[in-house]
Amino acid sequence: RRKGYPEVIFCQGKSIEHVRGIIKDMLEHGEDILGTRADRTMYDELKRDFPDLKYNEDGRIIYLKRSHSQPVGRILVATGGTSDIPVAEEAACVAEFFGNNVGRLYDVGVAGLHRLLSHMDELRRAKVIIAVAGMEGALASVVAGLVSCPVIAVPTSVGYGANFHGLSALLTMLNSCASGVAVVNIDNGFGAAYIASIINRMGEKI
Amino acid sequence: RRKGYPEVIFCQGKSIEHVRGIIKDMLEHGEDILGTRADRTMYDELKRDFPDLKYNEDGRIIYLKRSHSQPVGRILVATGGTSDIPVAEEAACVAEFFGNNVGRLYDVGVAGLHRLLSHMDELRRAKVIIAVAGMEGALASVVAGLVSCPVIAVPTSVGYGANFHGLSALLTMLNSCASGVAVVNIDNGFGAAYIASIINRMGEKI
Amino acid sequence: RRKGYPEVIFCQGKSIEHVRGIIKDMLEHGEDILGTRADRTMYDELKRDFPDLKYNEDGRIIYLKRSHSQPVGRILVATGGTSDIPVAEEAACVAEFFGNNVGRLYDVGVAGLHRLLSHMDELRRAKVIIAVAGMEGALASVVAGLVSCPVIAVPTSVGYGANFHGLSALLTMLNSCASGVAVVNIDNGFGAAYIASIINRMGEKI
Amino acid sequence: RRKGYPEVIFCQGKSIEHVRGIIKDMLEHGEDILGTRADRTMYDELKRDFPDLKYNEDGRIIYLKRSHSQPVGRILVATGGTSDIPVAEEAACVAEFFGNNVGRLYDVGVAGLHRLLSHMDELRRAKVIIAVAGMEGALASVVAGLVSCPVIAVPTSVGYGANFHGLSALLTMLNSCASGVAVVNIDNGFGAAYIASIINRMGEKI
Amino acid sequence: RRKGYPEVIFCQGKSIEHVRGIIKDMLEHGEDILGTRADRTMYDELKRDFPDLKYNEDGRIIYLKRSHSQPVGRILVATGGTSDIPVAEEAACVAEFFGNNVGRLYDVGVAGLHRLLSHMDELRRAKVIIAVAGMEGALASVVAGLVSCPVIAVPTSVGYGANFHGLSALLTMLNSCASGVAVVNIDNGFGAAYIASIINRMGEKI
Amino acid sequence: RRKGYPEVIFCQGKSIEHVRGIIKDMLEHGEDILGTRADRTMYDELKRDFPDLKYNEDGRIIYLKRSHSQPVGRILVATGGTSDIPVAEEAACVAEFFGNNVGRLYDVGVAGLHRLLSHMDELRRAKVIIAVAGMEGALASVVAGLVSCPVIAVPTSVGYGANFHGLSALLTMLNSCASGVAVVNIDNGFGAAYIASIINRMGEKI
Amino acid sequence: RRKGYPEVIFCQGKSIEHVRGIIKDMLEHGEDILGTRADRTMYDELKRDFPDLKYNEDGRIIYLKRSHSQPVGRILVATGGTSDIPVAEEAACVAEFFGNNVGRLYDVGVAGLHRLLSHMDELRRAKVIIAVAGMEGALASVVAGLVSCPVIAVPTSVGYGANFHGLSALLTMLNSCASGVAVVNIDNGFGAAYIASIINRMGEKI
Amino acid sequence: RRKGYPEVIFCQGKSIEHVRGIIKDMLEHGEDILGTRADRTMYDELKRDFPDLKYNEDGRIIYLKRSHSQPVGRILVATGGTSDIPVAEEAACVAEFFGNNVGRLYDVGVAGLHRLLSHMDELRRAKVIIAVAGMEGALASVVAGLVSCPVIAVPTSVGYGANFHGLSALLTMLNSCASGVAVVNIDNGFGAAYIASIINRMGEKI
Ligand SMILES: Nc1ncnc2c1ncn2[C@@H]1O[C@H](COP(=O)(O)O)[C@@H](O)[C@H]1O
Ligand SMILES: Nc1ncnc2c1ncn2[C@@H]1O[C@H](COP(=O)(O)O)[C@@H](O)[C@H]1O
Ligand SMILES: Nc1ncnc2c1ncn2[C@@H]1O[C@H](COP(=O)(O)O)[C@@H](O)[C@H]1O
Ligand SMILES: Nc1ncnc2c1ncn2[C@@H]1O[C@H](COP(=O)(O)O)[C@@H](O)[C@H]1O
Ligand SMILES: [Mg+2]
Ligand SMILES: [Mg+2]
Ligand SMILES: [Mg+2]
Ligand SMILES: [Mg+2]
Ligand SMILES: [Mg+2]
Ligand SMILES: [Mg+2]
Ligand SMILES: [Mg+2]
Ligand SMILES: [Mg+2]
Repeated sequence: RRKGYPEVIFCQGKSIEHVRGIIKDMLEHGEDILGTRADRTMYDELKRDFPDLKYNEDGRIIYLKRSHSQPVGRILVATGGTSDIPVAEEAACVAEFFGNNVGRLYDVGVAGLHRLLSHMDELRRAKVIIAVAGMEGALASVVAGLVSCPVIAVPTSVGYGANFHGLSALLTMLNSCASGVAVVNIDNGFGAAYIASIINRMGEKI
Repeated sequence: RRKGYPEVIFCQGKSIEHVRGIIKDMLEHGEDILGTRADRTMYDELKRDFPDLKYNEDGRIIYLKRSHSQPVGRILVATGGTSDIPVAEEAACVAEFFGNNVGRLYDVGVAGLHRLLSHMDELRRAKVIIAVAGMEGALASVVAGLVSCPVIAVPTSVGYGANFHGLSALLTMLNSCASGVAVVNIDNGFGAAYIASIINRMGEKI
Repeated sequence: RRKGYPEVIFCQGKSIEHVRGIIKDMLEHGEDILGTRADRTMYDELKRDFPDLKYNEDGRIIYLKRSHSQPVGRILVATGGTSDIPVAEEAACVAEFFGNNVGRLYDVGVAGLHRLLSHMDELRRAKVIIAVAGMEGALASVVAGLVSCPVIAVPTSVGYGANFHGLSALLTMLNSCASGVAVVNIDNGFGAAYIASIINRMGEKI
Repeated sequence: RRKGYPEVIFCQGKSIEHVRGIIKDMLEHGEDILGTRADRTMYDELKRDFPDLKYNEDGRIIYLKRSHSQPVGRILVATGGTSDIPVAEEAACVAEFFGNNVGRLYDVGVAGLHRLLSHMDELRRAKVIIAVAGMEGALASVVAGLVSCPVIAVPTSVGYGANFHGLSALLTMLNSCASGVAVVNIDNGFGAAYIASIINRMGEKI
Repeated sequence: RRKGYPEVIFCQGKSIEHVRGIIKDMLEHGEDILGTRADRTMYDELKRDFPDLKYNEDGRIIYLKRSHSQPVGRILVATGGTSDIPVAEEAACVAEFFGNNVGRLYDVGVAGLHRLLSHMDELRRAKVIIAVAGMEGALASVVAGLVSCPVIAVPTSVGYGANFHGLSALLTMLNSCASGVAVVNIDNGFGAAYIASIINRMGEKI
Repeated sequence: RRKGYPEVIFCQGKSIEHVRGIIKDMLEHGEDILGTRADRTMYDELKRDFPDLKYNEDGRIIYLKRSHSQPVGRILVATGGTSDIPVAEEAACVAEFFGNNVGRLYDVGVAGLHRLLSHMDELRRAKVIIAVAGMEGALASVVAGLVSCPVIAVPTSVGYGANFHGLSALLTMLNSCASGVAVVNIDNGFGAAYIASIINRMGEKI
Repeated sequence: RRKGYPEVIFCQGKSIEHVRGIIKDMLEHGEDILGTRADRTMYDELKRDFPDLKYNEDGRIIYLKRSHSQPVGRILVATGGTSDIPVAEEAACVAEFFGNNVGRLYDVGVAGLHRLLSHMDELRRAKVIIAVAGMEGALASVVAGLVSCPVIAVPTSVGYGANFHGLSALLTMLNSCASGVAVVNIDNGFGAAYIASIINRMGEKI
Repeated sequence: RRKGYPEVIFCQGKSIEHVRGIIKDMLEHGEDILGTRADRTMYDELKRDFPDLKYNEDGRIIYLKRSHSQPVGRILVATGGTSDIPVAEEAACVAEFFGNNVGRLYDVGVAGLHRLLSHMDELRRAKVIIAVAGMEGALASVVAGLVSCPVIAVPTSVGYGANFHGLSALLTMLNSCASGVAVVNIDNGFGAAYIASIINRMGEKI
């Protein structure tokens, strides 16, 4: 585990008992709690034992944070469509938990450029942008062409047919003709938030 | 062969003698000549026998057209980068041969949106747009989002690594989140020009 | 959104409440309603609130259209087999909604050519043909070889084994040796209808 | 080696010396010679030592047959385009060597159905048909729908882009919606001729 | 439909009502009934209306045959493992329905060669062999090396991991180093039986 | 073009004349020159016209920089093997050109962990690490597990067989179980240097 | 079946009755019982008839062993994460059943090298190591670089997105830059244990 | 480097000067020399400086061994065809260099089982078998079914079409239905010899 970053629980595939045990243990050691890929049933059960536990339903994140500091820098999370929001919320919620100042710009995909272009201020204000898109995944290239900050691209599995479960967006993003883009795994909002957080905090005095 | 469309010679893989024979035969039947995928050596050889034969070097097209009519409608051929120009010229030259009024808008890829946006007049004037792009192939979606006419998308094999010889651009274009896009084979400038020509001429009185 | 084309709701993955809200909003703005990928449960629920809402069960389309104009041109929707009908109905129903005159020619796959050939009149009457086929997807090539109008090819995921969820039909259609074919995403009846509609209306005075 | 079938030399990747040795050896044992994938240089060299050796240039076959019997049955080799002829000639030449009566029907692809349909007599006369096609490979299905005899389908690597070196034709043929089709490897004219020969001779009294 | 072969119902994806209607119709026209991919529920329902309908549970075949002729020739259906039996039974039952004399040789995969080798008589007696195998699919090659008759290879989706739903067996069979093998689609017992039946009956006087 | 970053020439596929023209033009506008994928022949030719042009042979970079500032921060370029050095040098040379302080740590792949572990100081000193590796590409994960800074992973096409031209390393890096990794295209040393440079300079006062 | 190795039942896809019959039969012949891929329901049912039957829940193994000998040699089963444990337990339990001395070293993936390095004694003590890992699957290479004994690598399907159901780990392991690694199928704990057992016992006097 | 195993030079992609330098260095340290993937030109050049250097032309191995010990155990290298011999010789020559007693059994593929079965003694005598095969790669399964020792399977890229450069043989071997098989990379004769050598020497007193 890196300095400044708590252990994160990947809840998918774990039993509620298992997660409960991990949380109990972490709380006893005075740690904050962050769990990803937790469905509502798991949250409702855990909530009984840990009444302070919070839930981001779209992002399927459980969290409990006792230490509070002023959010720093600016990470902007943008999505191509509304179906990409679950992955975007995983990223946004994790980034906030890690103490970053986070903005959201959803449903600004390239089929309607004007929506994206009308937010140039938001785009320019960011120190790091997380671009989340499925289907043809062109958002990352377009955004990277408009800004000077690093863009972390997250392909999503949103779509059908020849999207081959996210492969189309993944390849699009890897082949971006705009410079300043690097890519994480399909649907990996967490991973994008993690590296974006390290980058966003680099220029800060924390 | 369809009415109004001459037989087209696919020169790749054919010997010069073979192509010479076909041309001779077609000329004797009073037909115009259009040959694709012809390299300069082939052209130089054929030029000796058929001094009127013309060559589009970038598009690797040989042609000889005796009938001349007023070009109709407006097909716009756009490319993402300069490396896509050979495929674009194959499309543009074939479309001109078929009697269409053709515009070119090259190197307007999504990494520099301003270039594309500064040609909104050109884009709106077109009755059909052929969008040619390799690497991430996002041009087709962006263009389709800006205009109301049909967009024929041509993925190119331009790029390296995870472009997998045009697969990335192909998948991008098939998954376009903008409506009004249909796709032809990788590097198939000819095929795009053919269907664009049929469409462009539909509204004309010819 | 393009001039003359209403906003279309992609219902799959959206909750009934979400769709209900969108419809309510659109009706208040005087818009017609078109929703794709809606299952019967969703329709039955929505029907209570919007008694005029109609349903195309095969095509899984909900729609409500108040403005009525004379259908124009002629789009023919053809399928290879009976299992391709859901995708074809998505295309046909969307095309009708957009004001096009639509014909249907189902189960005319290439294993029984005589069926297809006995409808040459129907084929020739069309201004645009949408060819819907799974498995080996050869219908698009055969049809394009018989007619002079543009053919929009829709590969379907119908089949098993080495069809790889529509990949075989997709590749077949992209490699069509007949000119005049362009392809949309696997199972994308909607996308085919959209571009076919633009093309079909180009030659019309509307 | 099966009864009635000579050992066949796969020349590709073998040195001329190696092939010369094998031929010498086989001739001494009184065997007929059949070699596939032999280029002209190899043939010209071998011809010096074995003046009776014959060559099928298109099919790249070297052969020398001393026993001659009346060809039996009827194998028809059909191709979609002219570029498929090398694979077809490999099949036809091998089938003739094995003592079968062989017909050829080239360039009858599905983009021009009339060509194929004008040869119904030829098609019906065959006891086995070998259908050779690249690009979309639809020939096998169309032929199988027209006849009652077995169809051996040979996908070829002819084409470019999304043909992926023969994959498109291979998948098309495996997914044939017409019954009575079985498939061999991409470009495997030899393999098709071999099994076609066994089948063709089954009904004969030899 | 070919002479001598009844229409076959592909039941998968059809409603019971739909299939009932087809059967009723066919019986009224005096036709025999053959339906593939029918689950037990469908059979039990149909049985009420058509008490003579029979069921092959492993092969998921429903059938009703009134005409009875002496089975001819010999088709042998062999499998690599016991998990391949459903596909093999589809093939065997269809072949029997078509009037062929059918043998079964199950679980003789190449991991235990002695089992296969102890049935050389059975193998040699066959006029056509259908080799059904999943996982590495080597059965077809081994069998083809032992016999002189045609081998129709059916890859199955049996296995896990790097079998990629039948891809491994499919590629194995297409690349068979033994001559005399041709391949049908993954899990396509029906297709194998159909072509095997045509071949098997070629040498017969029927 | 972003502020502070010069236009970069992708020389591959461009003629020497073409590149010469671009350079001449840029020099006249007072710009620095950076060209990637330039082979030695191109460099030797260009050197005649532009005697100050420099060449990084391994990285195939041509460059000419007149402005000189103190390199800032610390980018470390690490490789798994010696065959990855060309891609690494492309990255290192570009990063130096952009004014970054660059370290190199080559041939520290995971098969000999001790080599990597003996450079913990170097690793910890970096503000950004570029991890370049082919074959199994595990270097990125291992490095990311050892440090707290962002890791930009570059898969290379080094290897053979089941590396599928870089696919294996690409998938490895996308699936990294260590957090803090983002990936660029196969062999894309330039792209890695570009984003690494933006990140490295974020914390600097420039 | 090999000498010294009992017949193993692959329970997945078999009915409880079928497995019960096989067990009954084997017990009557005095054989020990080993069944893989058995879920708890199957075990609970079988337990009634065979009260001595044991169950390894994680590894989904049922077993009953009457003969007991001293375990020999040392097979170490290591995993990258906790999600790989089911596959690892399949391997470990099978290896124990076959009479091997087995060690377990779980959750020692390359993102936290220190965990792995703190067990060098355990690693060096092994005669064969089974390395089980999903996602990027780098464990096998890292372990093979640290030890001199053979490493059997088992890729798992653990992960999501670009792991493509185990493909990423499989390719990683096949491309290992460390020598001394050989690979079995994705999730095939049984196969790894089988070959590891043969190797481990080679040096023993049994 | 492991105890008892010299450093091995992968010559492919290295300049002759580079390899010469490495050899000089190693000889000065008293080490034996083993280089793989060295073509004849490289050998001829190096031979001048190091007259004792030997060459295995088929296996493309250069080697120079001063220490000589009695070869131990028994590794048998078997191939399916003669085209697999280069990969097999790489394996055999490396295994001999490492001090193992090596047997060769070439061209015993499954299309002619009798050849393989006539060498049961050879097969049973081996302590480890390396099975080298391209195309359908069934050799490994068949061999593993006949013997009790470990089988290291090497898929080769031999073949064409749907062998997809070795993918077919690779998948076949990974899906082996015979137990006791583990697989190395396509064409990786060296890797197979390395792990086979470790295993073969385990039971020996060296
Ligand atoms: N949504 C996610 N996607 C990928 N990795 C994750 C995710 N959430 C947590 N992780 C990683 O998984 C680790 C915990 O895995 P585990 O030990 O299985 O709970 C964390 O330390 C993170 O590095
Ligand atoms: N560049 C091209 N790509 C794809 N198809 C082409 C191309 N050029 C010509 N064709 C088609 O190829 C046919 C001629 O093929 P061939 O008979 O082999 O010369 C023409 O009628 C066109 O339909
Ligand atoms: N199991 C099967 N696999 C592939 N094709 C089949 C199968 N069963 C029937 N068919 C084919 O499907 C056709 C009927 O399809 P349908 O009209 O959809 O019922 C038949 O004429 C057969 O050619
Ligand atoms: N988990 C497993 N994965 C792969 N093969 C297995 C597994 N368990 C058992 N086997 C093999 O499957 C054979 C039994 O298959 P079956 O006859 O279908 O029960 C055994 O002899 C083993 O070789
Ligand atoms: Mg930018
Ligand atoms: Mg548009
Ligand atoms: Mg046409
Ligand atoms: Mg037929
Ligand atoms: Mg045979
Ligand atoms: Mg780290
Ligand atoms: Mg080691
Ligand atoms: Mg064995």
